[in-house]
Amino acid sequence: MTQGNRPVRAWVFDAYGTIFDVHSVIAAAEQLFPGRGTALSKAWRAKQLEYTWLRSLMQRHADFEQVTRDSLAFVCADMELAASAADLAGLVTAYRSLAPYPDAIVALPVLQARVPLAILSNGAPAMLDALIRHNGFENTFSAVLSVEDAGVFKPDPRVYQLAVDRLKMPAVDIGFVSSNGWDAAGAKAFGFTVCWINRNNAGTEKLGVEPDVVLSALTDIDRLFA
Amino acid sequence: MTQGNRPVRAWVFDAYGTIFDVHSVIAAAEQLFPGRGTALSKAWRAKQLEYTWLRSLMQRHADFEQVTRDSLAFVCADMELAASAADLAGLVTAYRSLAPYPDAIVALPVLQARVPLAILSNGAPAMLDALIRHNGFENTFSAVLSVEDAGVFKPDPRVYQLAVDRLKMPAVDIGFVSSNGWDAAGAKAFGFTVCWINRNNAGTEKLGVEPDVVLSALTDIDRLFA
Repeated sequence: MTQGNRPVRAWVFDAYGTIFDVHSVIAAAEQLFPGRGTALSKAWRAKQLEYTWLRSLMQRHADFEQVTRDSLAFVCADMELAASAADLAGLVTAYRSLAPYPDAIVALPVLQARVPLAILSNGAPAMLDALIRHNGFENTFSAVLSVEDAGVFKPDPRVYQLAVDRLKMPAVDIGFVSSNGWDAAGAKAFGFTVCWINRNNAGTEKLGVEPDVVLSALTDIDRLFA
Repeated sequence: MTQGNRPVRAWVFDAYGTIFDVHSVIAAAEQLFPGRGTALSKAWRAKQLEYTWLRSLMQRHADFEQVTRDSLAFVCADMELAASAADLAGLVTAYRSLAPYPDAIVALPVLQARVPLAILSNGAPAMLDALIRHNGFENTFSAVLSVEDAGVFKPDPRVYQLAVDRLKMPAVDIGFVSSNGWDAAGAKAFGFTVCWINRNNAGTEKLGVEPDVVLSALTDIDRLFA
């Protein structure tokens, strides 16, 4: 994939929702609250993101584990699910062992053979470390960057700047990959070359910028080089 | 109501959802898409707010009418509602004639007799002017402040600062009133004395700050003075 005549010199991936399936917590949620697991997971994810945006704008940052915990507590109360402290803690801990998407398992080694790969995630460092170790990705990424180094969440440009600073490349030389349409928009507004992975045929977010490429799976990225 | 020993010297109101019912567009939506009006209104409002937060963080501001139009277009496509350009324009225009909540009609004149009232809203000036004229509130508010003067949406502190600058009072002397829990949290983080109007018994947002007072209607504010 080239932007103008410049090839992508590194791929930077969003983690939650792009490499790792946040809805792999459904099984644990379903066990606690039979028949409500999918609805809980969906509402939890929406509230979690809302809280990252609000705390960033309010200048009241807390790390992603705290936001994940707070959003789960709000949603359980809102859905009138009687969750104990241990239930809540168990579900938050499940974020450390999310499953990767099948296309991530296939695509990452292929891409890694060509250029360096990195992660740029809302996750706190300890959450990301655990997730990467759990899934055996210790040797896949040359950098795992957390928003904690910026003290604010995506899509604040200071977050995307972390990848430019670490990789020491112009933003346009970096291919940024996200399944979150709003993250793809934020990354494009920042200046990356952006692939939006639209696995579920979602509509394009109307935020005034569009990704360079829309693909249906991570395995399609490699074709862009062919 | 006092904060420490300081009385509230002015009340500043959020507009959409606090004085004016954003869901008064349901009737128009229902006429266009029978059986889907309530779901459309709810999804539209959620997406509209999401876009205000994302554009603020991305530093890609567009005014509230644009965001309202974009979020409606996204949601209609997502819900597979075949909306014509005229349908979309009609619904967006309905934001200029939203109905006030019944408790707002009763409470505002009572409060106005004591201290100055103002509006501080995400709305663009032309939207707010039309809404206030439509509802006969021309003489109710001594200031109608739009985020357009800050170039960013709530809960960015630069928005709340507009009220301090205009009213020339310390933030803590200003009573800020919102039905949007996240707006109440943002206003409290900024330093206002905050009333959250919780008409529907919603849960408290877990954003690290809490409003000073939670009331179920605007008519309860006056009791705080008694």
